[in-house]
This record gives sequence, structure tokens and C-alpha cells, in this order.
Amino acid sequence: MSTDYVHGYSSREGERLRDQATTLTALLHGDTRYPAGSLVLEAGCGVGAQTVALAANSPLAQFVAVDISPVSLAQAERTVRARGFANVVFQQANLFELPFAEAQFDHVFVCFVLEHLADPVGALIKLRQVLKPGGTLTVIEGDHGSTYFHPDSVLARRAVECLVELQRRGGGDALIGRRLYPLLTAAGFADVTVSPRMVYADGANPALQDGFTRKTFTAMVEGVAEAAVAQALMTPAEWTAGVSDLHRTAEADGVFCYTFFKAVAVR
Amino acid sequence: MSTDYVHGYSSREGERLRDQATTLTALLHGDTRYPAGSLVLEAGCGVGAQTVALAANSPLAQFVAVDISPVSLAQAERTVRARGFANVVFQQANLFELPFAEAQFDHVFVCFVLEHLADPVGALIKLRQVLKPGGTLTVIEGDHGSTYFHPDSVLARRAVECLVELQRRGGGDALIGRRLYPLLTAAGFADVTVSPRMVYADGANPALQDGFTRKTFTAMVEGVAEAAVAQALMTPAEWTAGVSDLHRTAEADGVFCYTFFKAVAVR
Repeated sequence: MSTDYVHGYSSREGERLRDQATTLTALLHGDTRYPAGSLVLEAGCGVGAQTVALAANSPLAQFVAVDISPVSLAQAERTVRARGFANVVFQQANLFELPFAEAQFDHVFVCFVLEHLADPVGALIKLRQVLKPGGTLTVIEGDHGSTYFHPDSVLARRAVECLVELQRRGGGDALIGRRLYPLLTAAGFADVTVSPRMVYADGANPALQDGFTRKTFTAMVEGVAEAAVAQALMTPAEWTAGVSDLHRTAEADGVFCYTFFKAVAVR
Repeated sequence: MSTDYVHGYSSREGERLRDQATTLTALLHGDTRYPAGSLVLEAGCGVGAQTVALAANSPLAQFVAVDISPVSLAQAERTVRARGFANVVFQQANLFELPFAEAQFDHVFVCFVLEHLADPVGALIKLRQVLKPGGTLTVIEGDHGSTYFHPDSVLARRAVECLVELQRRGGGDALIGRRLYPLLTAAGFADVTVSPRMVYADGANPALQDGFTRKTFTAMVEGVAEAAVAQALMTPAEWTAGVSDLHRTAEADGVFCYTFFKAVAVR
């Protein structure tokens, strides 16, 4: 009986998490549709989290997904094959040394990649080279500085700032979302259009509070616990209190806000 | 010749500012439409900035606009009459001692008012009393903690925080936007639906950068210059640099983000 319940619960849990993932996927990718026959580069596909959305939304387009990590690439290929998509080929490549001809792709897509690079404009210039004149580049990035919540908490804000500082020390920029317009303009793109995609989670939507506030954002913060304390950005007690205050924002009277930025630009 | 130019420029300037005001009005008020014959209370109309939008969007509804300040009320009445609207009556009243019967109004509207009150839930409870069962309350508030920009600047952020701190010392809350859901729920409202309305201004929209980043938000910050320095929140030199950095975010490669929150709830 208890086993049955646990299975039943797990099944509902999985369904809820898929619903949550679907909500975020629709928010970020719903308006990206490539025409039949177009050749699209996904630069930095990682383990394929966005690749499945691209392949599903544009079943008649052909995708080339590249990543610098062979391990991630193999996982991405397994994920995409398991979902039954046949319109993606995978290739190991460094974004700064792309093994493609000038103007080879109709469109280019890059998501959650620039934030990790010390030279995002340099990367965008490389991506622009492999794009056909008139083709589009689509970029999606988060911005951890767009995070605010209720109840407000100095320690919760400091825990989020640890994420920003650790990414900075790694050569990246967790505040890159707000910079998409100047970065794309500096890389020579035309008709740059940026649209913010805000996630707002309050007590009217407990599934979003649990799926995004707790299991996406707070879980991401919790992922750097060891590094934040080891690098003395916060004491263990401060960290624990800060993360607890983040979880608090997912309760019935809590509110959590985060904004992703999506840009489309033309070569 | 130079006079002609100045007039011509002023005319375009006025047109551009009206366009900007129209953009913000559409963002905040475009989806508020009251049915013909309904009786709507606007609580805290101030000088009538929102009243004209309400009257224009719902020409067949009847509005009662109240404010605690007779001077503001007289200005609101002049503004509304000058625009030719006949569907608003004005009445001096304290939000906490409303001279209306229980359940007198079909709908209630309150905008940029709760942020100034030490007891926003108490005010919402009073507004709920004069609302008919099944009638809606609409609330709009900003949230200065939703402000971020590029280039980022510690002094610019501190200048914004001065606004928050001064409002706090005056008994208000400049971070109230994110709290609308818990406040309305605590006041007993049902079916509370909050939607964020984000203003995003980059170099693709110089009119919005000038109209919102410079002439709305930065101008509001500049309005507390004297108080911020007198209360020693920043030195004069820090203040000047912070405000200069805010203006910097309205240049061609600058970006500015701010979010208003709009809630609709039912008695």
C-alpha cells in the first residue's frame, strides 16, 4: 500500500516536473520556429536540454548541434534519439574554431553559453561568420541580477551573489542577459531585437513555485554551496540561512521573480 | 530661423513624450476596461494621471475619484475636464475613512497609492468593504528593487536604494510591487491574479530610453537629491556620480529594466 502510494506520488511528481519544464520551454522556445529545409547550427548544445525543444518545434529543419565536450555531446545524442528525433546531427567542436565554411548555416541558435565565456563578443563574431547574410542568430541567456523575491532577505540575496561572483571568477558573467543588445550590436549584427521573458511565481501557482523557485533556481544556488563556503564568500551558517530564506519564498505567501532574455539578430 | 527650429524641436519633443506616455499607459492600463453603467471607485487619484486613462478606456462607466489632498483633487478635476471627460466625479476623502456605503461600487481601482501607506492591508480591507461581492479590485504598483541596468554601477544602485530608504523612513515601501499577491490574499480577496509589466529599454528604442530611463525613472531619483544628501545616505560627490551613471544607461549601448506589477482580485 505504501509502495503503491510512493509510486503513485512519484508518477504525479514526474508529471508535475514535466509540466513545469514544458512551461519554461514554451516561455523560452515557443516562438523559435525554423522553416522546412533550413540548416540550423546549435552552438553549445550541452546535454541536449534545448536541442529537444528545437527539434520538436521545427521538425522539418535540419540541425547541427555542436559542443566542446564529447561526454555532453554523447548524452545529448542519447536524449534526442530517445525522444525519436531524426533531424539532428552531432559534432564535437570548439565555438572559437568552428569546422564550418563561411555562411554555411541559414540560422544559428545559442542558449546559456555566452554566460560562461570570457569573450562573448569574440564568440558572436565567429557565429556570425558561419551564418548566411540575412540569416538569424537567436540567443537566450539568464541574468541572476534580475532575481528578487518576497520575503526579502539579505542572506538570500548574498547567496545569489555568490553564484554571480563564482561565475565571474570562472571568467563568465551571470549578469549577461541585460547585455545582449550591446553585445550583438558590437559583434556586427543588425536588427537586434531583445525580449525579456520573466518568470513570476506566487502562491496562485504552487507548481511553478516548486518547479522553478525551489527545483530550478534554489537548486542551482545550492549547487555552489561547497565553492561559496570554500572561497569564504559566506560562512556555513550564513549560507544555510540564505538558502533556507530562498526556499521560504516558495511558500504560499512567497513570491519569486527571475528574467531570461532572448535576442534575435540578423547577419 | 533659430526660433523656428526651437519651436519645431519642441513640438517633436512634446510628441515624443506623449508617445512615451502612451506606451506606458498602454502597458499599465490597456487591459482595464469597465462595462457600461458600472460604478467604479478610483482611490487616491492624485493629480489625475491615471484617471484620464480610466475615463478614456471605459467611456460608458461612471467613476468616483477620491484623494485626501484637496489641491491634488482640484488639479485632477482640471486635467480630466480639459480632456473633455464627463464620466468622473471628484470627492475629497481619506482612504481609511471612506464616505461610502458597504458594497457601493461595482469595481475599485488603486494605482501608486499602497506604496505610500504604513498599513496597506488595512487600506485594502477598507476598499474591499465598499466593493460589491463579485466585484474586482485592480491594483498597480512599481517595485524599485526590480531595477537593473547596463553598464552596472555600484553608485547608481546606491542612488536607487536611497529612494527605497527614504520611502521606508516615510512609512512606505518602494518594493511593494512583488508583495501584491500576499497583501491582497491577507486582505481577504479571492482569485488574486498578478501580472508583471516589465519596461525594457535598449538602444533599439531611443525614445523609450529618453522617455522612461531618463525622464521618468532617473528624474524621479533626481527628485530626492536633497533628502538623500541631507540624510547622509550618500555624499554629494557619490550622488552626482550615481545619477550620472543612471543617465549613462540611456546611451546607445545602455540597457535599463524596471517592472510594474498589476493585480486583479475579486471580493
